[in-house]
Amino acid sequence: MPTSPTLPASHAALLTAPGFGHLATIRPDGRPRSHVMWFDWDGTTLRFTHTTRRAKYDDLRRHAAIAFSVVDPRDPYRFVEVQGTATVRPDPGAAFCLALQDRYGVRFPVGDPDLRVVVEVAPERFYTKG
Amino acid sequence: MPTSPTLPASHAALLTAPGFGHLATIRPDGRPRSHVMWFDWDGTTLRFTHTTRRAKYDDLRRHAAIAFSVVDPRDPYRFVEVQGTATVRPDPGAAFCLALQDRYGVRFPVGDPDLRVVVEVAPERFYTKG
Repeated sequence: MPTSPTLPASHAALLTAPGFGHLATIRPDGRPRSHVMWFDWDGTTLRFTHTTRRAKYDDLRRHAAIAFSVVDPRDPYRFVEVQGTATVRPDPGAAFCLALQDRYGVRFPVGDPDLRVVVEVAPERFYTKG
Repeated sequence: MPTSPTLPASHAALLTAPGFGHLATIRPDGRPRSHVMWFDWDGTTLRFTHTTRRAKYDDLRRHAAIAFSVVDPRDPYRFVEVQGTATVRPDPGAAFCLALQDRYGVRFPVGDPDLRVVVEVAPERFYTKG
């Protein structure tokens, strides 16, 4: 089970493509949560759009550690997991949220621009399979 | 964000089909892990094949709480999350592992039959989206 401090080239496409990954966080009661999320990857940082009114925001305030896994849509026996620590920053004007809409090829009004935040994850290690 | 103590019919097909779900566990260091897994669902219990030599086995011995999310392969904006508590039992003759191979339409020798276990999850609640 290979782990690496950097993203292996063999699995880079799973993060550069606009896929749907599963974000694991730890709930306030200490139990895990797993939700499907849009994401962005610039080669260094993993980013998610989120709001201050959602459950995962409370999770991350208490437990900043996350795991995020993305499966290859063409081969479900290949996946990458990113393990890292999240920080949350404001998203003025929902600019990041709108950029993520562009990445995913959709456009809709951001209903809660004042609540939007960017969850940024500095990966600590990558686990790959397949 | 609807949660329910039972699996909503709208999302039942995501568990009855032989899909690829993401299992979130808590590592011994308290950080989350997220790995893609085969699974079985009989309408009451979620089951995974696993071995006593793998990382998630150690996770579950310390923290039995899990979350498991499955996305609709035809619509990535639909998914179901199962939250529950895992127990581990032996898998004599790797019978469950072989049954799971049948469910997924593959057949290969089980290399570690003496180490095989069944991870059983009694769901406590379901979260659905889409």
